[in-house]
Amino acid sequence: MDNKKALVLFSGGVDSTTALAMAVKKYGADKTAALSISYGQKHSKEIEAARKIADYYGTELLELDLSKMFEYSSCSLLKQNEDADIPKESYEEQLKDTDGEPVSTYVPFRNGLFLASAASIALSLEAEIIYYGAHSDDAAGSAYPDCSKVFNDAMNTAIYEGSGHKIKILAPFVEWNKKQVVAEGVKLGVPYEMTWSCYEGGDEPCGECGTCRDRREAFLANGLDIK
Amino acid sequence: MDNKKALVLFSGGVDSTTALAMAVKKYGADKTAALSISYGQKHSKEIEAARKIADYYGTELLELDLSKMFEYSSCSLLKQNEDADIPKESYEEQLKDTDGEPVSTYVPFRNGLFLASAASIALSLEAEIIYYGAHSDDAAGSAYPDCSKVFNDAMNTAIYEGSGHKIKILAPFVEWNKKQVVAEGVKLGVPYEMTWSCYEGGDEPCGECGTCRDRREAFLANGLDIK
Repeated sequence: MDNKKALVLFSGGVDSTTALAMAVKKYGADKTAALSISYGQKHSKEIEAARKIADYYGTELLELDLSKMFEYSSCSLLKQNEDADIPKESYEEQLKDTDGEPVSTYVPFRNGLFLASAASIALSLEAEIIYYGAHSDDAAGSAYPDCSKVFNDAMNTAIYEGSGHKIKILAPFVEWNKKQVVAEGVKLGVPYEMTWSCYEGGDEPCGECGTCRDRREAFLANGLDIK
Repeated sequence: MDNKKALVLFSGGVDSTTALAMAVKKYGADKTAALSISYGQKHSKEIEAARKIADYYGTELLELDLSKMFEYSSCSLLKQNEDADIPKESYEEQLKDTDGEPVSTYVPFRNGLFLASAASIALSLEAEIIYYGAHSDDAAGSAYPDCSKVFNDAMNTAIYEGSGHKIKILAPFVEWNKKQVVAEGVKLGVPYEMTWSCYEGGDEPCGECGTCRDRREAFLANGLDIK
């Protein structure tokens, strides 16, 4: 693979597709690579979305399978935990029952692992920037501790220092909510109808899980009628 | 796998074997797991050593293959870069030629990736502690930026915060040199003759690479005649 300027952590969902559009605009499709990581999720359909969108933008897509890392996890997002239901309520509701613990869809230290993986690969490609689509709704209190500001700051430092000052994380949406992310994407002409978010493994979005609700709301707020 | 108390990042070398001995002493072999990660290294012989030593201690060994993560790296430790020579001189000598850059045996952000992987797995096993055999000789100036104190501190914070305050890294040797690590291991009865360090892929240690020199010196200082 040719050297790159930017590597985008890319799930095929709303936020990371918007981040990909920004990277391509700034560095060009040739100098941007996207990284999609399988982790044993029920919604492997997002990988198919990622392939189509990378193709649409003409960027190289790297696919990694880290599902073995989570083989002992009881997280409800994972295929191996088929019987574990994915909650159909808001994070606020979910947190009432967890006693300060992460929610059942927290994948153990997933974001730390994904950012570290991106750092290793970015260094090999001589890229300087990792685009990371985290935004302010993600943290949702203690629901996802690997989305908190204190985690993000520490991980940024670890990657900058541990890479010999070669790699920086750019999280352009970290102070924005999802509506603002979509507003930016609309300006950039992001093909949101190609993205996939739903946590369930179905052929169509369920429309009821936390992530289906979030995206629907952000689309409607921007005049987009997409499920 | 049953739940554990401690997960040891375990290469089968001198430092991590000493860390394993400490964890087993504190938590017992049943409550300790060891994690060995392949990354495409020429010296895959260290994995064989890791298996034998885990068996000796009666601890479960998890093996992960992350070599795909480094497929674009030019690091001289990797099998795919067969023609890249592993330097036969001290780190001080090597650094004279790198102009402040990491040495050719720096594997891109490897330690960050390994610690993040250990955090994901430790959470799944409900372990509380990751043992990490880093010591004060490792950093060697700018040779390995992912061994620096500022990196270690940031990564510790990222893992503690990103795990919802569930996981801590214990690096008992971080202020010790390798001689002191071996001195501790001698007290614990560590079977150092079973460990493997050499970076070359040979059947016997080469005796000339940086890591062969380091271990030989630490052994001799403790009265052990092991190559």
